[in-house]
Amino acid sequence: MGATVRFGISLDEKLLQNFDQLIEQKSYMNRSEAIRDLIRASIVEEKCGSEDQEAVGTVTLVYNHHVRELSDKLTEHQHSHHEQIVSALHVHLDAHNCLEVLVIRGTVSTIKQISHELIGVKGVKHGKLVLTTTGDDL
Amino acid sequence: MGATVRFGISLDEKLLQNFDQLIEQKSYMNRSEAIRDLIRASIVEEKCGSEDQEAVGTVTLVYNHHVRELSDKLTEHQHSHHEQIVSALHVHLDAHNCLEVLVIRGTVSTIKQISHELIGVKGVKHGKLVLTTTGDDL
Amino acid sequence: MGATVRFGISLDEKLLQNFDQLIEQKSYMNRSEAIRDLIRASIVEEKCGSEDQEAVGTVTLVYNHHVRELSDKLTEHQHSHHEQIVSALHVHLDAHNCLEVLVIRGTVSTIKQISHELIGVKGVKHGKLVLTTTGDDL
Amino acid sequence: MGATVRFGISLDEKLLQNFDQLIEQKSYMNRSEAIRDLIRASIVEEKCGSEDQEAVGTVTLVYNHHVRELSDKLTEHQHSHHEQIVSALHVHLDAHNCLEVLVIRGTVSTIKQISHELIGVKGVKHGKLVLTTTGDDL
Repeated sequence: MGATVRFGISLDEKLLQNFDQLIEQKSYMNRSEAIRDLIRASIVEEKCGSEDQEAVGTVTLVYNHHVRELSDKLTEHQHSHHEQIVSALHVHLDAHNCLEVLVIRGTVSTIKQISHELIGVKGVKHGKLVLTTTGDDL
Repeated sequence: MGATVRFGISLDEKLLQNFDQLIEQKSYMNRSEAIRDLIRASIVEEKCGSEDQEAVGTVTLVYNHHVRELSDKLTEHQHSHHEQIVSALHVHLDAHNCLEVLVIRGTVSTIKQISHELIGVKGVKHGKLVLTTTGDDL
Repeated sequence: MGATVRFGISLDEKLLQNFDQLIEQKSYMNRSEAIRDLIRASIVEEKCGSEDQEAVGTVTLVYNHHVRELSDKLTEHQHSHHEQIVSALHVHLDAHNCLEVLVIRGTVSTIKQISHELIGVKGVKHGKLVLTTTGDDL
Repeated sequence: MGATVRFGISLDEKLLQNFDQLIEQKSYMNRSEAIRDLIRASIVEEKCGSEDQEAVGTVTLVYNHHVRELSDKLTEHQHSHHEQIVSALHVHLDAHNCLEVLVIRGTVSTIKQISHELIGVKGVKHGKLVLTTTGDDL
């Protein structure tokens, strides 16, 4: 992290009261931290809109491991993208259901494509991609 | 609008550079205005999460007006909620397709229910609800 | 609309029960209509992800019309894009607050740019863009 | 999984062509699987809208581990919710940045609250919650 800059912003009093309520509700320490979070989230959202931006994705998958060949197919997909899929976390939800979170690195379009392939595997009940930053610019 | 309050926030220099780029891209006049927008958006998002909050909704519908009885059904739905549906805008997209935007007032749950009914009418090609503020608290 | 095609899909019984509940809740007439809506929404979402796709946007703005020069600025923005901004609907929310919905035609990137400009105008309390289809392909 | 039910749906030919393109793009094996995914996603989205629904959440956090006491604070938060936070995955993005994915079980409102607390910790650059199913109903 580089130097810290400080600047003032002006706000309508009523708006600030509303914001302070939200800050408390969301457990922020202070206004600066809450505003920094809004700023960073808006930057991440914008950047992850361009297909060729370097990013990190986490894909959450819920599936029934009893479905024939499902685990094999998921493993195969992961290995065919082993340079992009950095890591995986597996949780046993109950006797039948598994949750898996995969961390993928690459351009936004690569991450989306790999995520589509994984979510599209027969037997995956629900899948969702989160695109986030590599941390570099924030 | 009430009194204006001013306070300082501190930010990492690199983050600020990134934010300033975003501000320019999004045509904001200055940082204060961009930050106020982020704050208001976060408050609106939070409020529109509670079912009993008073809000305003705009429902965008695209449909083919040649579909039998579709216009009649949409009109009927609108009249059965005439106390909530404040206003409507109709645009002729081409020889077949219409776009309609309806403005609905009520609690979040009422707005959602009316929106579901409209979007669910056979022949509506695409429908989307935006929940926003009545403007009171912001 | 062209010819109608029919095909069968297979589903787990429990999943279908859950879906039938959702269908009722969302006021759909039947499963076909509900599934068509899901399909169309997924196509619209995908298409509106490409910047050069022709689309329609509706921008919902809430603002206080007492803010100095705000209405003028909004009108000016609209006129400088009069070829893209097809139509507008204005609703008086209360003594102070207005809601305006603008319908914009163009490529996804043009619509986003115009929407950014409008939402960024000082005094606009909340703004939100909905991207939808011109109706052509659905 | 219970019995499999089969039923027919009818679609406009042009819409089906568009959908078939999307199916190929998203690597689905066949239409049934793609439609089942849309159905399940719509059910998950609806369910995760009710605060008291049992669900699973994955929270993706990106942070700089050099920030003083950040790791300690995150660990502390996790331990104070050890009954809900099932598991965690840690990835070293570069010399400074870490990505952590936490899996949380509980009601939707509990998951949201814990997620707010974690994302709100000073030094967390970006955080995002995905709400998904326990797998039971799908």
